[in-house]
Amino acid sequence: MVIILRDNPAQKQIDTLVSWLKEKNLDVHIVKGAGQTIIGLIGDTSKVDMDSIKTMDIVEDVKRIQEPYKNVNRKFHPDDTIVAVVPGVKIGGGNFQVMAGPCSVESLDQVLEIARSVKASGAGILRGGAFKPRTSPYAFQGLGAKGLDILKAAKKETGMPVVSEIMDISKLSLFEDVDIIQVGARNMQNYELLKELGRTHKPILLKRGLSSTIQELLMSAEYIMAGGNSQIILCERGIRTFETATRNTLDISAVPLLKELTHLPVIVDPSHGTGNARLVKPMAMAAVAAGADGLMIEVHNDPVHALCDGAQSLTLEAFGSLMESIAKILPFAYKR
Amino acid sequence: MVIILRDNPAQKQIDTLVSWLKEKNLDVHIVKGAGQTIIGLIGDTSKVDMDSIKTMDIVEDVKRIQEPYKNVNRKFHPDDTIVAVVPGVKIGGGNFQVMAGPCSVESLDQVLEIARSVKASGAGILRGGAFKPRTSPYAFQGLGAKGLDILKAAKKETGMPVVSEIMDISKLSLFEDVDIIQVGARNMQNYELLKELGRTHKPILLKRGLSSTIQELLMSAEYIMAGGNSQIILCERGIRTFETATRNTLDISAVPLLKELTHLPVIVDPSHGTGNARLVKPMAMAAVAAGADGLMIEVHNDPVHALCDGAQSLTLEAFGSLMESIAKILPFAYKR
Amino acid sequence: MVIILRDNPAQKQIDTLVSWLKEKNLDVHIVKGAGQTIIGLIGDTSKVDMDSIKTMDIVEDVKRIQEPYKNVNRKFHPDDTIVAVVPGVKIGGGNFQVMAGPCSVESLDQVLEIARSVKASGAGILRGGAFKPRTSPYAFQGLGAKGLDILKAAKKETGMPVVSEIMDISKLSLFEDVDIIQVGARNMQNYELLKELGRTHKPILLKRGLSSTIQELLMSAEYIMAGGNSQIILCERGIRTFETATRNTLDISAVPLLKELTHLPVIVDPSHGTGNARLVKPMAMAAVAAGADGLMIEVHNDPVHALCDGAQSLTLEAFGSLMESIAKILPFAYKR
Amino acid sequence: MVIILRDNPAQKQIDTLVSWLKEKNLDVHIVKGAGQTIIGLIGDTSKVDMDSIKTMDIVEDVKRIQEPYKNVNRKFHPDDTIVAVVPGVKIGGGNFQVMAGPCSVESLDQVLEIARSVKASGAGILRGGAFKPRTSPYAFQGLGAKGLDILKAAKKETGMPVVSEIMDISKLSLFEDVDIIQVGARNMQNYELLKELGRTHKPILLKRGLSSTIQELLMSAEYIMAGGNSQIILCERGIRTFETATRNTLDISAVPLLKELTHLPVIVDPSHGTGNARLVKPMAMAAVAAGADGLMIEVHNDPVHALCDGAQSLTLEAFGSLMESIAKILPFAYKR
Repeated sequence: MVIILRDNPAQKQIDTLVSWLKEKNLDVHIVKGAGQTIIGLIGDTSKVDMDSIKTMDIVEDVKRIQEPYKNVNRKFHPDDTIVAVVPGVKIGGGNFQVMAGPCSVESLDQVLEIARSVKASGAGILRGGAFKPRTSPYAFQGLGAKGLDILKAAKKETGMPVVSEIMDISKLSLFEDVDIIQVGARNMQNYELLKELGRTHKPILLKRGLSSTIQELLMSAEYIMAGGNSQIILCERGIRTFETATRNTLDISAVPLLKELTHLPVIVDPSHGTGNARLVKPMAMAAVAAGADGLMIEVHNDPVHALCDGAQSLTLEAFGSLMESIAKILPFAYKR
Repeated sequence: MVIILRDNPAQKQIDTLVSWLKEKNLDVHIVKGAGQTIIGLIGDTSKVDMDSIKTMDIVEDVKRIQEPYKNVNRKFHPDDTIVAVVPGVKIGGGNFQVMAGPCSVESLDQVLEIARSVKASGAGILRGGAFKPRTSPYAFQGLGAKGLDILKAAKKETGMPVVSEIMDISKLSLFEDVDIIQVGARNMQNYELLKELGRTHKPILLKRGLSSTIQELLMSAEYIMAGGNSQIILCERGIRTFETATRNTLDISAVPLLKELTHLPVIVDPSHGTGNARLVKPMAMAAVAAGADGLMIEVHNDPVHALCDGAQSLTLEAFGSLMESIAKILPFAYKR
Repeated sequence: MVIILRDNPAQKQIDTLVSWLKEKNLDVHIVKGAGQTIIGLIGDTSKVDMDSIKTMDIVEDVKRIQEPYKNVNRKFHPDDTIVAVVPGVKIGGGNFQVMAGPCSVESLDQVLEIARSVKASGAGILRGGAFKPRTSPYAFQGLGAKGLDILKAAKKETGMPVVSEIMDISKLSLFEDVDIIQVGARNMQNYELLKELGRTHKPILLKRGLSSTIQELLMSAEYIMAGGNSQIILCERGIRTFETATRNTLDISAVPLLKELTHLPVIVDPSHGTGNARLVKPMAMAAVAAGADGLMIEVHNDPVHALCDGAQSLTLEAFGSLMESIAKILPFAYKR
Repeated sequence: MVIILRDNPAQKQIDTLVSWLKEKNLDVHIVKGAGQTIIGLIGDTSKVDMDSIKTMDIVEDVKRIQEPYKNVNRKFHPDDTIVAVVPGVKIGGGNFQVMAGPCSVESLDQVLEIARSVKASGAGILRGGAFKPRTSPYAFQGLGAKGLDILKAAKKETGMPVVSEIMDISKLSLFEDVDIIQVGARNMQNYELLKELGRTHKPILLKRGLSSTIQELLMSAEYIMAGGNSQIILCERGIRTFETATRNTLDISAVPLLKELTHLPVIVDPSHGTGNARLVKPMAMAAVAAGADGLMIEVHNDPVHALCDGAQSLTLEAFGSLMESIAKILPFAYKR
């Protein structure tokens, strides 16, 4: 951490600041030049509150030079974390997985038909929304507990592990048989939920918030890992920008960047990330080429009721074609 | 709502779509031109799922022409909502209020000193954080329930009603004696929490999310109001942009725009909105001039421990000066 | 400037870097701690290319701690610059000015009617577009040289100095009798144009680019001032964000921030900044309250042809009302 | 185009608007429902000024339903445009090209060494900056005309066609022997320059502005094509978002989206798009997988002077490795 002082600070004020810093067991180095003074702090500054220091009269600015996260930092844990979802289904460390399924769980028939088809196409994990975060209170909010029951029945029938989104701590007990608990973009900074999930031993799929930086995503993962749970899968799903031709801007560069900064597996959701079924395939291919550890894809099954699926869902056939395309690219993907 | 069809659609597909729309009791108007067909929907389309329609093969685009919110819409409720916090303390409909206090509650002494001073300067409501949403799991997370007890003690001592942030439904019972429950920016789309607050009769302070549109803020208010609680105060607190010279970009235009779209009172938080104590006063003045119904300001009391306050807090003296400045502008503010 | 080295760098590489830095006459300070090394540079680093240093293998990051601008920096020129447009019309240093007029110059009659009316309402400078930057090649591109002639005729008739936008160096000679040359948002980083304007002695109105940071705006002003022309007026006119309810997000906090960082006058354009005539008045009032040195407002004159003006233009009456409102706030504005 | 009127408009006002629209030869359809009226316009509305209509008192909103661009629109020109740079070097319509070279031209030796190496690795076009747009007036502004001469000499020596950036119309004559003229991101909306380039018969490389939408990029291409020049290559090079871990956010989804909307070739610049040499390779691979028609890559040659290259440049070896990786992915890329 580097503290830049205002021009020509009073020596007494410098002394006060320095002794305050030394109390925090920091290695303090003072650099003085013509009128200008910089203080360098060496050591673990992850618990030093930059904002506090900024308030001092003599301080012009404070710049962090070390990452504020430790557990999720690849510097301290160079080996890839491999998340073992169920026996035989792993993500990370060279294990690539595709999660596919309907946006919302509607019925057992629907889920079964989709599950069998996506499994045949090569998907390893079944996704399905039971609790749906919807902008409007008048929109369909999901089947809730019943939706989770349908997913579990589909798991029993097909053998596919399931992933579904949790929206509130109070529902945690319902997720006991869910294999991966998803934290949605809107809850990425729901810290109470993250703390609670840190106390479980379940794999957690943590989606990046719509306006969250890479560092904030890692800090939210740090919340979970600080609680003792390192089974975390990060998911890029598009950020909010000025562009309106796509619903979000899928930040593919987050993949290689996150893989450099952290040991956790990183997947991409091109369905939400673009909001446009026609862009799902090329963006899935891009994500794979850039080194993603997996994908999350929305699929619908019923041409008659396609009306009720999101504009971003693929048909079963389109999903099959996508899987064939990524299979060809995967062997040549970045760092494979 | 307007549905734009792809060029030269098959009549059979048009018929299918039209009958599907008519089933939803919509007044359907077909406009045909050279190769191009538009369908206009008149009536209440707030419950029609645009995304569903977009998935139809023959649909090129769907555009909403009516607001998707009803309860919070000024069109249907032209009169200003006045939130009555406690007898004698109102916000909205010409009632201007300033909420002031420390970022985090630290001790009763601290809170009392600040409360007495800001009250003398003209603040009507005491703010203080007990549960603090912090990016880092290693940062101070607030005093929690004890912090709320301190606020209540300060209320008893000074007579000032208090506002404090809730982070999770499970803590709701602790907020019984808190006069205004604050929903922070990160929880603006925590829909389970919003639904629960809709069932209370407490005034709710709803902060705009960091990347939330005006319409999304109104939809979140709609969640609360759909539950039966209309005592909602909206708060602009800065949005996330590419600019890095300020922590957020305080969107002052949200004030007159929200006042036009909704009957709910609108306040501004220039402390979080700028993250810079030197900008709090001019931005508070701007907010008042633009017609805000109130302000929320962070204040600290202790020059020795100023280190531990955020870079955005004012001293007690600076807050007094701010109050004097806004008192001069208030009579000439927009629409007064 | 602070250079953060990668962990455990080789001493030989440090030596190479340090001697390279010393060649540039920089005062180099090395701070070493457990495994970590920081290099602090004291002195004028405005000409050091950060990006170059970042490429060195041993460098992890480089952080600038001094502003990269000198001429426009208030630190080195504490007194407000006062731009003297014509005798009796000044901006900055306590001189407040409103520039008003039509979006596009259409005819002498139109301009004269508007000029007389806005002058009567208190505007000091006449604005009017002759060369119009339009997104579409099929949209009206302005009257060009003829438009400038109309403005000059209106100036002769009314005595009001005029401001108009230049789009290309090749047209500079046409602007000889234009009192203020405007550089539009899209040309804020047209460096060849800025250099050329730096060689003139004309007042320049420099608008902030749609996605330009405060620092980039100041660097563009630095281009002009480095050429010898210090008669620069900065103009905030809205930045591009995810919000779609307004055309741009008018960044009012840019006003007090710029006034702190630079000695140049700062004005605000709420017409382009919001793209919505109903928001022009409250945002003009906000800008004045926050300490702006002036305003730029679009006004149209003809209710029958109002169709041909932008959605953001005020009627003559609405402009008169706006001027009355800001006259009341101005005496109590920030730092007055 | 759809015009939404305010509730219960006066019939007389509707009549005025309708006759005004009919004068513009538009096919006008009025849709009336309970209190609400919509006007649908069928036909070519590319020359109708939406903003003008928005200003009418009775108009609530105007929504465009057809793209405002014609010449660059794939709807009207379904076949891919193939840009023929020199005999044997084409881009688009299945022809993939890589442009590589130094950020700034420094000397003939430098350029020749890089050119020979990148050609051996498979690059088809040599890039090099002679006129450099730099944020700071104190930074190196490029060798100018001398830089172009060096490029031309390198072309003669190696046979590689060259691409270089133009910053101002006045320099156009210097670009006679430059094979592709590049318009940089900051000049994407320099309309005078675009018009002038539309009158040439040179291939133009048009880079997307930092905060430009896909539609604005296409409108800028429309400016060039409206002038008669259809030899346009579009280039995605990163947009400005809140994320600070990368210099820009490279919008890979722009590739498949642009390929759907326009017949022009689309390339990607991962060097500027990320500002980070370590991200260039994975992002180049992602771009290729998503269907890009080419890449533009910065390369430097000299380890000793690597200091003077941007943080985003690859070494010659790293470029060779990148070319090998993309050669493996290219056959399996989207829509190949």
